[in-house]
Amino acid sequence: MHPHNFGAGPSILPRQVFEEASKALIDFNGSGLSILEIGHRTKTFQSVMDETRALVKELMQLDANHEVLFLHGGASTQFFQVPMNLLPPAATAAYTDTGIWAAKAIKEAGLFGKVNTACSSKSTGYNHLPKELELKNDPVYLHLTTNNTIYGTQWQDLSVFYNTGLPLVADMSSDILSRKMDYNKYDLIYAGAQKNIGAAGVNLVVLKKGILGKTGRELPSMLDYRNHIEAGSMLNTPPVFSIFVCLLTLRWLKAQGGVEAMEKINGQKASLFYETLDALPVFKGTVAKEDRSKMNAVFVLENPKAETEFLELCEKEGMFGVKGHRTTGGFRVSMYNALPMESVQAITAVMRYFAQTKL
Amino acid sequence: MHPHNFGAGPSILPRQVFEEASKALIDFNGSGLSILEIGHRTKTFQSVMDETRALVKELMQLDANHEVLFLHGGASTQFFQVPMNLLPPAATAAYTDTGIWAAKAIKEAGLFGKVNTACSSKSTGYNHLPKELELKNDPVYLHLTTNNTIYGTQWQDLSVFYNTGLPLVADMSSDILSRKMDYNKYDLIYAGAQKNIGAAGVNLVVLKKGILGKTGRELPSMLDYRNHIEAGSMLNTPPVFSIFVCLLTLRWLKAQGGVEAMEKINGQKASLFYETLDALPVFKGTVAKEDRSKMNAVFVLENPKAETEFLELCEKEGMFGVKGHRTTGGFRVSMYNALPMESVQAITAVMRYFAQTKL
Repeated sequence: MHPHNFGAGPSILPRQVFEEASKALIDFNGSGLSILEIGHRTKTFQSVMDETRALVKELMQLDANHEVLFLHGGASTQFFQVPMNLLPPAATAAYTDTGIWAAKAIKEAGLFGKVNTACSSKSTGYNHLPKELELKNDPVYLHLTTNNTIYGTQWQDLSVFYNTGLPLVADMSSDILSRKMDYNKYDLIYAGAQKNIGAAGVNLVVLKKGILGKTGRELPSMLDYRNHIEAGSMLNTPPVFSIFVCLLTLRWLKAQGGVEAMEKINGQKASLFYETLDALPVFKGTVAKEDRSKMNAVFVLENPKAETEFLELCEKEGMFGVKGHRTTGGFRVSMYNALPMESVQAITAVMRYFAQTKL
Repeated sequence: MHPHNFGAGPSILPRQVFEEASKALIDFNGSGLSILEIGHRTKTFQSVMDETRALVKELMQLDANHEVLFLHGGASTQFFQVPMNLLPPAATAAYTDTGIWAAKAIKEAGLFGKVNTACSSKSTGYNHLPKELELKNDPVYLHLTTNNTIYGTQWQDLSVFYNTGLPLVADMSSDILSRKMDYNKYDLIYAGAQKNIGAAGVNLVVLKKGILGKTGRELPSMLDYRNHIEAGSMLNTPPVFSIFVCLLTLRWLKAQGGVEAMEKINGQKASLFYETLDALPVFKGTVAKEDRSKMNAVFVLENPKAETEFLELCEKEGMFGVKGHRTTGGFRVSMYNALPMESVQAITAVMRYFAQTKL
């Protein structure tokens, strides 16, 4: 039996993606060659790259102004690449400080220009999302993290950002393609692939070409988005296999009914989970209810001494990755696109059983 | 039947690596989970990372001063990361200009400090390796490309570099672990994995810690080698699967008898290939004989009009990746570690057959 995998990333992908990727490692599309040994400049791989980028455009319903890139690295790479490409030395960028990853993005931006912290929930341990933004010094862009993986908060209403009229840059690593959203409202979106899109080792970057080339900064070739756009996301040898896994995952996502269908099932999974959590007094959610993430549910036990006992029960029942992030402790149940409803049913059953034994 | 794969990269890996990787995509080490869905902070993946780094140290016989990192990207990423970390703004680095990749490394270094071209074979189309170096302005390091993948040249005698007494930095992307070499003589070695080590999307970087932190430059966190060393090559989510494929390939390499055994068989493969080439007047090698690469053999036809005919024959006989790089034309037969002797026997047979039909 496949364990229920609630890991936060690298995380569960659709079963059929594992199976198709496994086959392609032996024989890719009847070529007799493994996907790992095919040159990236071959027609065979070019068609993988083309279809993957086209599927992103289709699933995100991007307009003609948006380019799609698959770049080496993870979101941490984008933390510096974004300001390096977008923030002139004397200019200001506004950042929302809503978690550890957001704070890391702020630190990197400070190397390239001025940073205005538009809002912060740091003083209360990032347990909610601030409802107001303070914008000053005419920021050239506003950066947000749509879902905070470690704390389990997610911006449910993005209009506070849309209303600023500022160019928006978003780290969507942990909730991209999990809900309907007007992706065209963003000048730049980035996401490490290893949660909702595919395998670790590649970044999805979606951006408007028109925002580039305004910093006066001379960039290393590999860090200049313009070079990657010009080269069709093939400036150097790309992370071939990671991109292929993205292709398989995106095909699956489309077959499920796309983002709209994902939003529906993700809503059902989150409802079941949080309703169970709220009905069981032995457990306690750690963030403001209105800001709860549909991707990562973070919670603790009223009696922290029983933590090990709960984790052991989870392990015994074939639940993987329930332990919380090392900075928050407690538990985290991640419910990315590929996590089936059955897994949420299974863990909520375990939670109910545990609650009963504690009565 | 598996085709004979002479592609220059991504390129052939050992058959058992494909098979083991294929299995791990369904069930990694009996966990019931795919290698793609296992968090990088788990004990399971930590042991993959530890064993991979330890195998590099063992196979390269590195001393205690050398650190082993697996970083996102390819050699093109190292072209800028090396000078960013090692070259102070007012200082000079010496570079050998022996091919397109070497020239790209020079271009990136120029963004960070001064570059002294220590030697160049550009004026003759990179058809040989210069035998003398001109070093001036007290360079902080000397950069070389041990094997030039596109042109098919390889430094057979590295003493010209060792004799300079300068700190050495080497791009070994296309011949690392293919021959005996005193790897400890280098302050920094880098290699895109997708030729002799594993899958695309990861770089092997071997370096001495003592050379870092001397530029006065403030670096983005992800670009500072010191942070990666401190984090045990796990500063952010690493390219999990690409590293796992490196592990499988390095295990295979060790089982074959390590670098010494590789050097022997690679010598035999190259001898058979070049002896055949030199014996058939319809073909012509393009580089100086003493600089010929044992990894990439580049050649043309005396009568270029017959090129398509030869390529069609190769394809018919199940030979993949024989077409030369787009900048050189002609043909290229890559003979990396994983290419079996049988494949060299097969292509030389095809060459002999083709030569006969042209008599």
